[in-house]
Amino acid sequence: MDYEPHARERMGENAWAYISTGTADERTLRANREAFERLRLQGRVMTDMSGAHTRLTLFGDSFEHPIFLAPVAFHRLVHPDGELATAFGASAIRAGMVVSTSASVPIEQIARQATSPLWFQLYLQYDRIFTQSLVTRAEQAGYRALVLTVDAPVTLRNREQRAGFGLPPGVEAVNLQGMIPPPPPRAEPHESEVFRGLLAGAATWKDIAWLRSITRLPLLLKGIMSPADAARAIAEGVDGIIVSNHGGRALDTAPASIEALPRIAEVVAGRVPILMDGGIRRGSDVLKALALGAKAVLIGRPYIYGLAVGGPVGVAHVVKILRTELEIAMTLTGCANLEAIDRSVIWE
Amino acid sequence: MDYEPHARERMGENAWAYISTGTADERTLRANREAFERLRLQGRVMTDMSGAHTRLTLFGDSFEHPIFLAPVAFHRLVHPDGELATAFGASAIRAGMVVSTSASVPIEQIARQATSPLWFQLYLQYDRIFTQSLVTRAEQAGYRALVLTVDAPVTLRNREQRAGFGLPPGVEAVNLQGMIPPPPPRAEPHESEVFRGLLAGAATWKDIAWLRSITRLPLLLKGIMSPADAARAIAEGVDGIIVSNHGGRALDTAPASIEALPRIAEVVAGRVPILMDGGIRRGSDVLKALALGAKAVLIGRPYIYGLAVGGPVGVAHVVKILRTELEIAMTLTGCANLEAIDRSVIWE
Amino acid sequence: MDYEPHARERMGENAWAYISTGTADERTLRANREAFERLRLQGRVMTDMSGAHTRLTLFGDSFEHPIFLAPVAFHRLVHPDGELATAFGASAIRAGMVVSTSASVPIEQIARQATSPLWFQLYLQYDRIFTQSLVTRAEQAGYRALVLTVDAPVTLRNREQRAGFGLPPGVEAVNLQGMIPPPPPRAEPHESEVFRGLLAGAATWKDIAWLRSITRLPLLLKGIMSPADAARAIAEGVDGIIVSNHGGRALDTAPASIEALPRIAEVVAGRVPILMDGGIRRGSDVLKALALGAKAVLIGRPYIYGLAVGGPVGVAHVVKILRTELEIAMTLTGCANLEAIDRSVIWE
Amino acid sequence: MDYEPHARERMGENAWAYISTGTADERTLRANREAFERLRLQGRVMTDMSGAHTRLTLFGDSFEHPIFLAPVAFHRLVHPDGELATAFGASAIRAGMVVSTSASVPIEQIARQATSPLWFQLYLQYDRIFTQSLVTRAEQAGYRALVLTVDAPVTLRNREQRAGFGLPPGVEAVNLQGMIPPPPPRAEPHESEVFRGLLAGAATWKDIAWLRSITRLPLLLKGIMSPADAARAIAEGVDGIIVSNHGGRALDTAPASIEALPRIAEVVAGRVPILMDGGIRRGSDVLKALALGAKAVLIGRPYIYGLAVGGPVGVAHVVKILRTELEIAMTLTGCANLEAIDRSVIWE
Repeated sequence: MDYEPHARERMGENAWAYISTGTADERTLRANREAFERLRLQGRVMTDMSGAHTRLTLFGDSFEHPIFLAPVAFHRLVHPDGELATAFGASAIRAGMVVSTSASVPIEQIARQATSPLWFQLYLQYDRIFTQSLVTRAEQAGYRALVLTVDAPVTLRNREQRAGFGLPPGVEAVNLQGMIPPPPPRAEPHESEVFRGLLAGAATWKDIAWLRSITRLPLLLKGIMSPADAARAIAEGVDGIIVSNHGGRALDTAPASIEALPRIAEVVAGRVPILMDGGIRRGSDVLKALALGAKAVLIGRPYIYGLAVGGPVGVAHVVKILRTELEIAMTLTGCANLEAIDRSVIWE
Repeated sequence: MDYEPHARERMGENAWAYISTGTADERTLRANREAFERLRLQGRVMTDMSGAHTRLTLFGDSFEHPIFLAPVAFHRLVHPDGELATAFGASAIRAGMVVSTSASVPIEQIARQATSPLWFQLYLQYDRIFTQSLVTRAEQAGYRALVLTVDAPVTLRNREQRAGFGLPPGVEAVNLQGMIPPPPPRAEPHESEVFRGLLAGAATWKDIAWLRSITRLPLLLKGIMSPADAARAIAEGVDGIIVSNHGGRALDTAPASIEALPRIAEVVAGRVPILMDGGIRRGSDVLKALALGAKAVLIGRPYIYGLAVGGPVGVAHVVKILRTELEIAMTLTGCANLEAIDRSVIWE
Repeated sequence: MDYEPHARERMGENAWAYISTGTADERTLRANREAFERLRLQGRVMTDMSGAHTRLTLFGDSFEHPIFLAPVAFHRLVHPDGELATAFGASAIRAGMVVSTSASVPIEQIARQATSPLWFQLYLQYDRIFTQSLVTRAEQAGYRALVLTVDAPVTLRNREQRAGFGLPPGVEAVNLQGMIPPPPPRAEPHESEVFRGLLAGAATWKDIAWLRSITRLPLLLKGIMSPADAARAIAEGVDGIIVSNHGGRALDTAPASIEALPRIAEVVAGRVPILMDGGIRRGSDVLKALALGAKAVLIGRPYIYGLAVGGPVGVAHVVKILRTELEIAMTLTGCANLEAIDRSVIWE
Repeated sequence: MDYEPHARERMGENAWAYISTGTADERTLRANREAFERLRLQGRVMTDMSGAHTRLTLFGDSFEHPIFLAPVAFHRLVHPDGELATAFGASAIRAGMVVSTSASVPIEQIARQATSPLWFQLYLQYDRIFTQSLVTRAEQAGYRALVLTVDAPVTLRNREQRAGFGLPPGVEAVNLQGMIPPPPPRAEPHESEVFRGLLAGAATWKDIAWLRSITRLPLLLKGIMSPADAARAIAEGVDGIIVSNHGGRALDTAPASIEALPRIAEVVAGRVPILMDGGIRRGSDVLKALALGAKAVLIGRPYIYGLAVGGPVGVAHVVKILRTELEIAMTLTGCANLEAIDRSVIWE
């Protein structure tokens, strides 16, 4: 977290407003942190830690540690090399990276830069043919999984609006070029812009089968906060679930992701792996997420702040700090590997 | 809420003290907001929202959305056209409006201005004959329902007192002209001014039958916070209930209206429609109120701030923002219409 | 509470440190207020309030309202006429007054000034013969009850110590002149000053019978916070109980008096009247105390602030405000007299 | 606590950063205080306190009161005479003192200075032969018990890191001179420094038997926060348990020690004595710890602040204040000796 104030200086108000903001009154943004702070750890002593490690396997790939980089749009907002710099840092620290649909660098270039496994994050676009081509490109470029974001068909970001955020020249969603845009909303003055226009093309459950039909990549849904939706997702055949409230950027007064996690883990019951993001700022937070049912976690703002301040080295350093903190927390709770982490490390 | 600071500048300290204040230490005023902030929403994803809308019907009238304007006295305190400007804005955004007994414009003029349905808010006056003529005037002017406010026979507004609030020249309760005032309190120095004087003419349960006898308008009681009173109100034959703590302006350390709502909804059990006001500042608050048993909500201070800053356009804009936020919140909780909103959208 | 800042200006730091302070970290002092703020009231509407009043009878005397003045030492610290001014104000507003053992005016003079009933507060002194003469003086001067304070045999007031509080010239415990002081502590350096010295002469349960034997006045114990002590007190034959934590000036991290009240009321079960003090700042607080089992309440700092700012008029005005607020709160909760106040006015 | 600001001035930023800091975000450091503040005391009145005292016996030694000095490294950081000054002050006030492995004065010199019983705190060192010699030295110098600290094999102190803490010239762990250091970590860049290096030599359960085999001193484990570990410790034959979270300096978001204490007391069930430290700042805190199962408590930062400000006199004064406060709290809760203190003094 020491990176945050430095990043703010470097990023300028425009990018800061985009990256740091949450939805509406930002209660969920704060809730993500506060819920982690409320969770407390049960210390254990004198455990034999010889041979301890943090390795895991996901969808056939093995990872040194459970800290992934969450999809964030437009890395070139904070660093001239954008996602290339991020991928370079992620590879150095062997962190899995989820590349955004709205990346500011072509996804093929990112794939050539990375030596750690990459996943591709997708928003279903109004133009389904273009969407299909995007998925094919990602598969061919060697991305190892598809992450469909489903929790933000429409949003409300007052702080971003108040700051008058706009993309600066030269930063754009290069991977979406050539796409047919959705038709403009055609609501009467007293009708709903939301219901008549903005939702055009939003993903619904029937899109899962279609996605399945166009790719063989493992498919994860990102943005699940409801046990019922988790059950439905598994029924529809998804391969993984990412518990997320979009970093507090979608539904305001949603609970913290870490609060939703155990309820979802109970319903999923180990049938598919669960990841989570939202509020991870300490290695002890990673430990708590794993204790409550996650196989791995994703961080967003922290690595963006690292990228803004130190480029690839900053990204790697942020992950390194979290990993070291995780190892210390594992030692002090007597867990010699990730499988040993269970609910008993939470003080209740 | 962005209107509030601007409104404060425009309104001057006198009107600000009158409008913004709550009773005593203003704990209930704050409670109204805090209770909404504590309530959290259960997000849902990938719901098919085609055909979504926010329409409802109340007492035979249909409304585009469930956001009403609560009765507030003396709109000319904040805008020269007073309630005419409000009615113009309300009609543009198709919002139901409840006109106060203490309106600063004749109720007939307001009725001519409005194209949305109007309801008339009544304080029982010591002069019952005058009260009757007022009800008759409202009925003849086309008001569609009668809202009897019952929760503030005496009050205590320290901040208003400290600011030395008084009505400026030209702003008055024009609809009460010609009324016989209550006799002055005649308490001995050691006796009670409250019990001996101020309560003269306050409404009691037996007045319901009398009101029934003088009008055919649907009758709502505004200010119910107790399940027992709600049951009694239905037994006395009222047509609707407005759960309200008078915006934190009556009994201090009363709970928030949104806390009282579910207990009252349980007792009422759908026999008459329930509305609520108190603390609505976001569309997600409207969603929460509907989830806990309200058919519609009323806003007070927010539209007054809109009126102070932007006149009719300000009023319409405030309602428009709330409606858009409501639609976003419905989308993110998977509710395609008001009937779909139930307790399951609340995270518990 | 508007009197408090003015009083602070008038009183000077010395008297302010003495009057305003609590024990240790002043957590109990704050708890007394916070507990009242947490308690919430269940509003009721349309109750018929004709004939409403706040009268009560205690030990054969009738009182216009249930707001008493608690014993506070040395009124001359804040007003040159001291307890005479207080008694004059109390009589004007017909408030019962409990005069302190440490009054700065002879108790006989106070009795001549007062037209409202007076009670006499007693600390058992090391010199029991002197104590007996004091009780006899109070009885002969017309005091109507004896209040034995039992909760502060030793105390710890850091803020008072830090301010270097001392009595100014001319202010003293005039009613204790001629008393034999306790012997000085004779503890070795490593022994306990508290256990070896300061407790000499402290009241124990066996003193109740002795007090009984020397006076026919009704006897109340002030400072009871434990149900077991309340039961013992009744077994020893006391006539009333005052639930009090000494205004947060005795045991720090004691609960608020208003929290202890219902537990004690349950044990006492109406066998003797219960009063309470600690944190009363609003008429709604009086209502809450009565709802939880008190017959009457005592205020301390508020009337001292009134005395400091406005002399007898200030004392009367403070009580008047509280009484008016109590009547408003009774109206808004539907209670037409003190007997009608019960637990149902508390929102639970 | 009045010593703390003065100590800060005297100590300089370097020593202040070392002594005052907690781990990570210092949530546990704050939790230690807040948990004591939340606990509330049940006042009792009129108890006969004649013959009251605070004496206790531990491992055959008798103590005037239950306030011990916790092991803290490098007293010469804050006072030129270091642990000698502390021992002098401790003896004057008859407080038990636990001397740290990292004392800045030879343990034999400290033993010659002290007239109160001393215990010796041990970190197991990588060099087990040296560790054995250290234990033998302590035993021969007359230390009365061995306290093995087990809760901080690796730590994370951000505030200390940010302040760039380092030992000043002339202050060092004189009792560890001649020890063979652990080998440097030999982790690859992507491997774990924590798991591959820093844990070398950390104590595990099998070390208890070894320690038993090299000394006849009573053995206490310091840093137990888990009931399971407490049970294991007793099964391994330890003679006492110190509930501690290392003053908030080890595992962040660990609960407060005082929260862990009752759970551990339940499991231990009186088989061995329990002590606790963490957050004791008032005599009422000592009372609370004893009520929840501790036989005695240890203070750390408070006496260090006393040492920094007033040398031996400061140390003795800090203990004296706490003892006096404890006696007042015992009086106001009706406990005439330590055996009389039980759970009933806690308001629940």
